Amino acid sequence: MEERHRYKEVGRHITALIDSAALLPGERLPSLRALSRQLRVSIATVTQAYLELEKTGIVEARPRSGYYVRQALRRLPRPESVPRPQLEPIAGNRSRLIQTVLGAVGSSDLLPLGVTGAAPELLPGKLLAKLMAAECRGAPEAAIGYEQIAGHIELRRQIALYLLGSGIAARPEEIIVTTGAMEALYIAIRALTRPGDTVLIQSPTYYCFLQLLESCGLRAVEIPSHPRTGVHPDDLRQALKRFDIRACLLAPNFNNPDGSLTCEEARAEIMAILEEEEVPLIEDDVYGDVHFGPRRPGTLKARDRRGLVLYCNSFSKTIAPGFRVGYLLPGRFFPKALEIKSTTNVTSATPTQRALAAYLRQGHFERHLRRLRQTMEAQMRTLQLHLGCHFPAGTRVTQPEGGGALWVELPPGVDGVEYFYRARAEGIGVVPGSVFSTQDRFGNYVRLSCNGLWNEDLARGVETLGRIAAEMA
Amino acid sequence: MEERHRYKEVGRHITALIDSAALLPGERLPSLRALSRQLRVSIATVTQAYLELEKTGIVEARPRSGYYVRQALRRLPRPESVPRPQLEPIAGNRSRLIQTVLGAVGSSDLLPLGVTGAAPELLPGKLLAKLMAAECRGAPEAAIGYEQIAGHIELRRQIALYLLGSGIAARPEEIIVTTGAMEALYIAIRALTRPGDTVLIQSPTYYCFLQLLESCGLRAVEIPSHPRTGVHPDDLRQALKRFDIRACLLAPNFNNPDGSLTCEEARAEIMAILEEEEVPLIEDDVYGDVHFGPRRPGTLKARDRRGLVLYCNSFSKTIAPGFRVGYLLPGRFFPKALEIKSTTNVTSATPTQRALAAYLRQGHFERHLRRLRQTMEAQMRTLQLHLGCHFPAGTRVTQPEGGGALWVELPPGVDGVEYFYRARAEGIGVVPGSVFSTQDRFGNYVRLSCNGLWNEDLARGVETLGRIAAEMA
Repeated sequence: MEERHRYKEVGRHITALIDSAALLPGERLPSLRALSRQLRVSIATVTQAYLELEKTGIVEARPRSGYYVRQALRRLPRPESVPRPQLEPIAGNRSRLIQTVLGAVGSSDLLPLGVTGAAPELLPGKLLAKLMAAECRGAPEAAIGYEQIAGHIELRRQIALYLLGSGIAARPEEIIVTTGAMEALYIAIRALTRPGDTVLIQSPTYYCFLQLLESCGLRAVEIPSHPRTGVHPDDLRQALKRFDIRACLLAPNFNNPDGSLTCEEARAEIMAILEEEEVPLIEDDVYGDVHFGPRRPGTLKARDRRGLVLYCNSFSKTIAPGFRVGYLLPGRFFPKALEIKSTTNVTSATPTQRALAAYLRQGHFERHLRRLRQTMEAQMRTLQLHLGCHFPAGTRVTQPEGGGALWVELPPGVDGVEYFYRARAEGIGVVPGSVFSTQDRFGNYVRLSCNGLWNEDLARGVETLGRIAAEMA
Repeated sequence: MEERHRYKEVGRHITALIDSAALLPGERLPSLRALSRQLRVSIATVTQAYLELEKTGIVEARPRSGYYVRQALRRLPRPESVPRPQLEPIAGNRSRLIQTVLGAVGSSDLLPLGVTGAAPELLPGKLLAKLMAAECRGAPEAAIGYEQIAGHIELRRQIALYLLGSGIAARPEEIIVTTGAMEALYIAIRALTRPGDTVLIQSPTYYCFLQLLESCGLRAVEIPSHPRTGVHPDDLRQALKRFDIRACLLAPNFNNPDGSLTCEEARAEIMAILEEEEVPLIEDDVYGDVHFGPRRPGTLKARDRRGLVLYCNSFSKTIAPGFRVGYLLPGRFFPKALEIKSTTNVTSATPTQRALAAYLRQGHFERHLRRLRQTMEAQMRTLQLHLGCHFPAGTRVTQPEGGGALWVELPPGVDGVEYFYRARAEGIGVVPGSVFSTQDRFGNYVRLSCNGLWNEDLARGVETLGRIAAEMA
């Protein structure tokens, strides 16, 4: 890390100490001089680190005494297990609410506590601008011409190389470049289903998936997503036995919104069940790259020997959302998927594919991801601490090991949809839990996220959110 | 026109004289000196014009005598009316053949006599590269961020301004930017139909439409597209009376492949019928901008007072195919269309939308279109003349007033699909007529086009195609 960023490292160190309860609320932080000696950094660096921590509200300065962990700071417990979902195919019914929420979440007038994915300020916009300019100028005719239906071949090569790190050995010819991961999902759903069919999902699940299913005339069978351990094989087995499921749609890595990570042993069993029942799986892995631990979690695709997994990912959460570049590994459903791609929009835009291919080829991605993961983890930790400062007793919040969202269980009886409207009236964007299921299971939940650098507006926003929750509790 | 391009004007003048039979095959062209005097251009300019015409094979130089219209030159008659299509809903059945054809048409190894749309060499690649670089560098964060679901607002403003020229008064908020016109079509089809529904199309129609209908599980009722006058209201009325038609999909301007232009009086009647029956119309206008006459033909959307027309267009045929920027005016179906856009791929890529917005805002489009139309018309005329030189008796070819393709009726008994394979074996890409209908109506047709500048390879290719036709006749 460059010298001028050293203070961030110091800040993370202190946050980790608070986080692990090595430093308790009300306790004094090490003196500037002591920490400077211990960490072998300048006093100026420690000072800057403490000032930044003070801005986030985690520590406070007491005149002529030093810095202290804020007295009010406390960790919220994790969410309770909710009652199991009703095991019944249900046609979508949330579209109107989702549209309202989407409009609010996307609004730039609102404080973005409902938006996931990294904010543009954390992404390599300038470098991409340079690469885009170089690609367009270097080959202007190629940059305005069509790519192959499956996408720019050099980009597909780079994706294939990158996927090796996720344990996926795919040839470039097995990859279809899509207009974002959403299109990968959409193509996968169209390739596997017809209106009236039933798809298995985990509950809660990303609301855009529910919208997609509803738009395609599909019914959803929901199995529980356990807040820490994600999908349990027994739940899957039972649902497959009972219903004519045409496809499963799961996010084993940091499921949006609960951040759950389906554990390794469960994955082996899940894959065995799917193979036995010959049911295809659509695997959403858009948060797999944003893990906080040292190692990337695995994928079900890596375990797929029979081409049953349709793997979906994108660069929208990590490099450039507006480039709309995602990819699909459709396994044995490749011909059908390619036909759907060609009849939807022929092929994705050329210049963005070429700029991304150059970005990957030049080896920027790994380095950027390392930084991004640290930042995202720090933001999430900070948000958790602030929730602890301001939310009433009875609130619970997840402690995900990756991804981009916190799943907050408000005190019993607090209505998440009303909470959403009251937050919006105060200029704050949040997402009510109701939109993450076709059933009324998450009425007192909201999803909170922090996609940009922490700042005083966000701190004030969380304070307001805590006040609203206390008023409604 | 700049001085150094003056020879092109001279060439067009001479071609027009040949085309209008003012100069007949075997006749001598005006002498260099005479034409130089008449047109007030230098002798060098006339010389260059004649040399270029000689390259195209339209005229020939005879030693010590001058330039002559080639003796063998003859105009082919226009296609006969084919028997009417069977008036019956038919589920798609051409996908396999279409896939094969698409693979061949897209192959860069083949002489591109099957590809429509302008080749990159005729498009403003360099200027767009410059604008793209400026947009990305000027606002790197915006360029990698998401646009609104309906697209970049400045681009939609520019499109709204441009549409005024087509008689369409639309507000930017009524426009959805799509990933190419194909996606506009796809969204329109999804917004109006469910699998098993029936859609009315003209016959012949663009094969990708048939592929889309098949992929969406729809059936097609075909009404005749008359080679010159396109769709006749009586055919439409009759079909709407007999079948439960959920949507019509028509290309009134230079229908691909027959180049037909539905006439103005028919349009008024068509619109009245649709309003009376309350049947929505998907209007494909991607070739409307490529008219050879002085005035752009109108649109049905301009006559649409009740929001029944879903208008589809793009910049793929005129500016930058690989940018994948099209647009949809979904009329009263806007909410449903926006929902489908959001569940398909959320929104289209940002940088290409911004570069195009800048291109339009700076006023380049009209100037570029003027040049492009002249070039496309000249290429088409040249192709027609060469067909006349080399194709056997019994061949017929359209004389479209716009668009990008010639629809060639081969002598009776020549099988277009076999012709396609034999041309491919000789390294030439053409499109067999069979893929333009769900019925066996165009077995002895092929579509030919010339999307780049005429050259000797193309001239030799047409000679080969003529030989193959003669062998098969």
